[in-house]
Amino acid sequence: MGGGYIGLEMAEALIRRGLGVTLVEAADQLMSTMDSDMAEKIADAVRGVGISLRLGDAVRGIDGDDRVRSVVTENAEIPADLVVLGLGVRPNSELAVKAGVTCGPTGGIVTDAGMRTVSHDGVWAAGDCVETYHRISHRPVHVALGTHANKQGRVAGINIGGGYATFPGVLGTAITKVCDLEIARTGLSSKEVDAAGRSAVTVSVDSTTRAGYFPGTQWMTTKLIAERGSGRLLGAQIVGRELAAKRIDVLATALWHGATVEDMLGMDLAYAPPFAPVWDPVLIAARKAADAVAAAR
Amino acid sequence: MGGGYIGLEMAEALIRRGLGVTLVEAADQLMSTMDSDMAEKIADAVRGVGISLRLGDAVRGIDGDDRVRSVVTENAEIPADLVVLGLGVRPNSELAVKAGVTCGPTGGIVTDAGMRTVSHDGVWAAGDCVETYHRISHRPVHVALGTHANKQGRVAGINIGGGYATFPGVLGTAITKVCDLEIARTGLSSKEVDAAGRSAVTVSVDSTTRAGYFPGTQWMTTKLIAERGSGRLLGAQIVGRELAAKRIDVLATALWHGATVEDMLGMDLAYAPPFAPVWDPVLIAARKAADAVAAAR
Repeated sequence: MGGGYIGLEMAEALIRRGLGVTLVEAADQLMSTMDSDMAEKIADAVRGVGISLRLGDAVRGIDGDDRVRSVVTENAEIPADLVVLGLGVRPNSELAVKAGVTCGPTGGIVTDAGMRTVSHDGVWAAGDCVETYHRISHRPVHVALGTHANKQGRVAGINIGGGYATFPGVLGTAITKVCDLEIARTGLSSKEVDAAGRSAVTVSVDSTTRAGYFPGTQWMTTKLIAERGSGRLLGAQIVGRELAAKRIDVLATALWHGATVEDMLGMDLAYAPPFAPVWDPVLIAARKAADAVAAAR
Repeated sequence: MGGGYIGLEMAEALIRRGLGVTLVEAADQLMSTMDSDMAEKIADAVRGVGISLRLGDAVRGIDGDDRVRSVVTENAEIPADLVVLGLGVRPNSELAVKAGVTCGPTGGIVTDAGMRTVSHDGVWAAGDCVETYHRISHRPVHVALGTHANKQGRVAGINIGGGYATFPGVLGTAITKVCDLEIARTGLSSKEVDAAGRSAVTVSVDSTTRAGYFPGTQWMTTKLIAERGSGRLLGAQIVGRELAAKRIDVLATALWHGATVEDMLGMDLAYAPPFAPVWDPVLIAARKAADAVAAAR
């Protein structure tokens, strides 16, 4: 198995069915799209429901005859009746390559903003098979998500029908729920910031999803990554319990509009005790990030 | 009683305690900060829990001797053991006026963006007693909310301490929960758009809070008000069930950054079935608003 979205969702579904579950992940953290400190909180929750976690251990083979007997990893042999492989997604663009359609460094088909293939007049492409533009790194990326596929399909359809529409690129926003833990991210992770050659200031804030005294309030951690100097928001991550993760949309919206963390700290977000503390976690994080950006100047 | 936040919250609290509750409101709708079509949904929910609603009927007097016996309205006499008055909030700036501190058309103390009173050197003011700048109408407004008071206090404190900070104004974002109905608004309402002499295009979208097939999905209505011609977002309102209303923050963030509805429809918001449909309600509304703005050009 793998420690991405599908691997985690399957692991949880199976342990809830009463099976013993071991999750093997070659990387030394779960969910490579999250920073390692946030991924540790996810690992805690996963272990908390009884899933046995093997990080930094790669699957070398699957043993058995007419049925599986065990999974052989670098460091162990794990008896198994059932194996689920969650190995990530790559664009299946073989047919396109054979037809001479230009594919990019990510393996995805290259289109213009109107979803026309750049190599073939009158041929459009949209969805998991294309590569797209990352609005923060300004690099081509392959992000296989239904949201993008759906929007790209709409853009392609409008253009094919003689209208005009463009797909404006992605931020890499994603959200999931694993073992009652809500997890979300947008923009660049710390690793992606480094890979893009940007210099950043990073803050993490622990707060509550509702007013602290309100029944049902839960913990959440918000992490912001802002560009050193300019203070421009580059990325954000949230891990927490009920009501935590959808706040990523506020950060994605700020990111979409090129906000600095300084711009964000005054934002007029909604407050009432059932919904947020007086300072929404997003604002607390922005305030702390603005202080950190100023201190680093 | 009144049909604003406090009147509604008290009415709900009292009927949950088993009391018979009549809510009298002089205006012909609940919550004057919401458009009338959205207010009707709130009225339905309020009636649904058994609160008797008298809209467009003003309280003329309270009858009784050493204890209340009835409330006399324009159209009725309502027997009562207990009366709660929710009459709105006005700045209590009498002391300031007497001291010669400049107050504005809203009755609130006038300050600069650093929260210094404009009339008295070395005197600062913050919170429910001041008037503030509305970022969309560009007019002075009085909005007595803890979020603003808190941010303004921080700004005043920084400046008093010799630092530099400014309060960037408000959007009029507000959220509340009444009878399991979540209600939120930001920016200008249709009435406020008219009062500001702006011309707008308005759309309402009914959608679900989670993927339609996901357990616990609920209905929500999102209303967007966009400037005719430019398509700039001017205001937004949400009424719905669990998980609906905090989405107002996405709209407030777009509004904060001067977004057009066309800018917004491609936004990379988070999707997973427990959290949203593939097209988040905010995006469906933006798409519909962009179509309406284009059609009105």
